[in-house]
Amino acid sequence: MAESTAPRRRGRRPAGEDTKGALLSAARAVFTEQGYDGATVRMIAARAQVDPAMVNHWFGGKESLFAAAVQMPITPEQILETVIPGPKDELGARIVRRFVSVWDETGGGPFVALMRSASSHDDAAAMLREFITHALFGRIARAIEADRPEFRAALVGSQVAGLGMMRYVIKVEPLASADHDTVVAAVAPTLQRYLTGDLGAG
Amino acid sequence: MAESTAPRRRGRRPAGEDTKGALLSAARAVFTEQGYDGATVRMIAARAQVDPAMVNHWFGGKESLFAAAVQMPITPEQILETVIPGPKDELGARIVRRFVSVWDETGGGPFVALMRSASSHDDAAAMLREFITHALFGRIARAIEADRPEFRAALVGSQVAGLGMMRYVIKVEPLASADHDTVVAAVAPTLQRYLTGDLGAG
Repeated sequence: MAESTAPRRRGRRPAGEDTKGALLSAARAVFTEQGYDGATVRMIAARAQVDPAMVNHWFGGKESLFAAAVQMPITPEQILETVIPGPKDELGARIVRRFVSVWDETGGGPFVALMRSASSHDDAAAMLREFITHALFGRIARAIEADRPEFRAALVGSQVAGLGMMRYVIKVEPLASADHDTVVAAVAPTLQRYLTGDLGAG
Repeated sequence: MAESTAPRRRGRRPAGEDTKGALLSAARAVFTEQGYDGATVRMIAARAQVDPAMVNHWFGGKESLFAAAVQMPITPEQILETVIPGPKDELGARIVRRFVSVWDETGGGPFVALMRSASSHDDAAAMLREFITHALFGRIARAIEADRPEFRAALVGSQVAGLGMMRYVIKVEPLASADHDTVVAAVAPTLQRYLTGDLGAG
């Protein structure tokens, strides 16, 4: 309403913003349809009707475009390279520590936005499902050659998402403001059992 | 702006709906300000400018009004009376089983609505915080005379909320369609440790 009537490059938004927005929409559609592994830069660019070079120009590649599309402040690859190396029996601890480090830095606001999107839009939920199953926790479970990798990935996702809900969305004390060591000590054994422990019958 | 100047009973909705809506709004405000224990039927009725008898008429009492205000299909008391009795070392199993029973029956839709509200509205988040800390999980932790009851309640809340996210909101398989026994076997030990186990240093 109060917007200037002067043309900005003649479109409403700068050309770069249009391209970025189109690529993000296309990415959500293609990652949802093809999965994280099946989606390619070429498919996403074609869907957005832009040159594939634009993906690298604006996002730096498929992994970063995925992170942007799922509203994550970090790519799955950046998480995996700090979480996978090290003793297998401290995997749970490394995951919790990385999770609170990444999201605490953003002040939690983007996590709230992520949960709002996931509970309001099917495509956002589908992206998050892909993130948990294939891009991140599923890859961790497969990297350690776990049995039932998808079930383990979903369980890890449940505790990590729930920790984020308590800490950033609902802000339940004293978990919301607990320091990293306290959170890691309490939650790491859960993730460790989900990844390498006994899940019982069923 | 578009509000009618006609008296209430001539409004667009039946008088009962107006009273119920006013009571739900008032309940959210009073429960948030006073906490679950501090809030009274009288306070809520006064805030809604209706007779206290209307609370019992429409909701059956404070507990049911709280459940309605926090969009839960069941009252904290109904949960507690089936979860608390029984062996202390099977408390985690009883909580998981009750959780999936209650929410599976609703088809999960109301849980999605709950998460959407909590991530979009501060008052809904505050109500859920009250639910976790005082109305339900905090009471369980105190009933078994646990140390650090609030921290334990928040941890239980994190796993239960996260399980709901995976099962009903993001729908990550195979957790989304796993049968109750499978979910209980996998998740109950987590809740059990959060309630009665070692939470580590910190």
